Amino acid sequence: MMGSVRAITVLPGQAGTARLDDIPEPPLDDGPVLVETLAIGVCGTDVEIVRGDYGTAPPGAERLVIGHESLGRVLDAPAGGDLAPGDLVVGIVRRPDPVPCGNCAVGEWDMCRNGKYTERGIGGRDGYASDRYRIRPEYAVKVASDLDQVGVLLEPTSVVAKAWEHIERIGRRATWQPSKVVITGAGPIGLLAALLGRQRGFAVTVFDQVTDGPKPGLVHDLGATYRTDGLDDACADADVIIECTGVSSLVLEVLGRTAPDGILCLTGVSSGGRSLTIDAGLVNRELVLGNDVVFGSVNANRRHYEAAADALDRADRSWLGRLITRRVPVEQFADALVRHPDDVKPIIDFSKTP
Amino acid sequence: MMGSVRAITVLPGQAGTARLDDIPEPPLDDGPVLVETLAIGVCGTDVEIVRGDYGTAPPGAERLVIGHESLGRVLDAPAGGDLAPGDLVVGIVRRPDPVPCGNCAVGEWDMCRNGKYTERGIGGRDGYASDRYRIRPEYAVKVASDLDQVGVLLEPTSVVAKAWEHIERIGRRATWQPSKVVITGAGPIGLLAALLGRQRGFAVTVFDQVTDGPKPGLVHDLGATYRTDGLDDACADADVIIECTGVSSLVLEVLGRTAPDGILCLTGVSSGGRSLTIDAGLVNRELVLGNDVVFGSVNANRRHYEAAADALDRADRSWLGRLITRRVPVEQFADALVRHPDDVKPIIDFSKTP
Repeated sequence: MMGSVRAITVLPGQAGTARLDDIPEPPLDDGPVLVETLAIGVCGTDVEIVRGDYGTAPPGAERLVIGHESLGRVLDAPAGGDLAPGDLVVGIVRRPDPVPCGNCAVGEWDMCRNGKYTERGIGGRDGYASDRYRIRPEYAVKVASDLDQVGVLLEPTSVVAKAWEHIERIGRRATWQPSKVVITGAGPIGLLAALLGRQRGFAVTVFDQVTDGPKPGLVHDLGATYRTDGLDDACADADVIIECTGVSSLVLEVLGRTAPDGILCLTGVSSGGRSLTIDAGLVNRELVLGNDVVFGSVNANRRHYEAAADALDRADRSWLGRLITRRVPVEQFADALVRHPDDVKPIIDFSKTP
Repeated sequence: MMGSVRAITVLPGQAGTARLDDIPEPPLDDGPVLVETLAIGVCGTDVEIVRGDYGTAPPGAERLVIGHESLGRVLDAPAGGDLAPGDLVVGIVRRPDPVPCGNCAVGEWDMCRNGKYTERGIGGRDGYASDRYRIRPEYAVKVASDLDQVGVLLEPTSVVAKAWEHIERIGRRATWQPSKVVITGAGPIGLLAALLGRQRGFAVTVFDQVTDGPKPGLVHDLGATYRTDGLDDACADADVIIECTGVSSLVLEVLGRTAPDGILCLTGVSSGGRSLTIDAGLVNRELVLGNDVVFGSVNANRRHYEAAADALDRADRSWLGRLITRRVPVEQFADALVRHPDDVKPIIDFSKTP
């Protein structure tokens, strides 16, 4: 008889409140699919939540279960559906409630226009960092069983799958045959964006600051180029730039710098509050005369999760495995939330050791 | 016997060199369609050319015939084609030569990627400001005969037809039901962008500085709203912003300011050289979290000229006529190149007075 589950919770808005809790079994209200959590990925948003800078508890609750990058195994699912016990699944983060807008109503909650959504593990709804959770089947995405623990990369991959989908759709405004892609930042988002760029056959160059650690090798092994300088020249030749750092000075450095008809996709969420100077007339002129596009992309809907599952399934398993640079047992979860120098993607391991 | 034609020419790069010249009859090499010029519209680019700040002569020539916004009547055309004597036509500005890129090769020279094009009346090819010109039929676009002199608005309308086409195509990256449009600048481009926005059924608000002159009435008579303040609030609610001034401080004011999923189209060509401060982190964050698009749009291809001809044909003739605020006889052409306070679109009248 299962009476309670372990869960990583925080008091939103208060630093230093993260702890491993015992909480009741997941409520049936959350959905008919019962999932055993195997791993939780950690990203900057989790760090912000644990620091007390972000996140809200579910209505009526004090604490929030964190964890939005997940991997789990189905324990129980309604008969006759797409899911069966043993399937590996990832839960979608955003929910189009309490008040679905027109986009949410057609499943494009990543493009929500009224802001009245919830996000599991982030805002208004408990996350996946618990031994078990429940979910409605439409929010659970199956991943290939042989992906094993790298399935935990699905959520960040869904973010870049959306970015790439929008790049391609925006590119269709006119004839467009892109070939060169520049990516700024070799974190998980940058590396996964590079993977999807290489899967599309593009020449990909990834820029980052570090010269050691796993990043240069990971980029190289994709058949992409890793560089720490020469960004200006690379951009002038780029059909696509995907900015994955959110560093404001870098955003300004790449703004309007693509080749003619180029597309700059912004994916990094930066904080404001620091003024920089810009020759706005020159940037505007370059954007206009170059027919350039700059767009922001955030979150992902089910279509993007499915595209991401397909992308991961086509990727080299050992390369994906190298993105997971640390596996921290759930009892030591706090260590996963502290940045280590060679981190790409640390994960919290929920799988039971026999 | 026609031995020579009058033409407005300049020595590119030298201010104060504009004059009404006699030049030889247009060469057969320019194309089999012979056109009698009726009117030439004047825009900021012409003013720059006459000031010596822009423009290049054709290869081997010293002087450039100006005029890229044109209206003419066919005098002679190959039998069996789409054009016949008496047709009103407008010449397309950009030519995909001498070295067509991949986009130019499929007729999308507005999206040229190698910069090796010519532009009649602007760069490397004589313009339309002469009594007669010759043209290849693929570069001559027919306009409805009852448009009469307002057909001279086709070229600027083609610029906004392209902008609107790209807005709509970019909008298709996701579900999108725009309704509110903000336009900055009530010059010819802003007013024509407002016209095309109203033709699409959108709620359009046009912002400009002036409180008198013809602009407020022109906007009002489109069923649009004219405002001189409150830009911030209007943008926060806007699905589409079309920036038509090129004023760099205004560009920064509207950047990242649309409603979620909004599209900002930049059409104004500004000059650089003046530094402004910007909270780049905040702008980046707004673009990313809002899934916002910013894009530049310049020039137009034949598809856009045809869309523009259709838009003008559906517009109120007298409203279009009010955009033409001055008709300057060709002998006094210099006056058309000087800005008057209530100017919207001054034109140079080439039609013969009986």
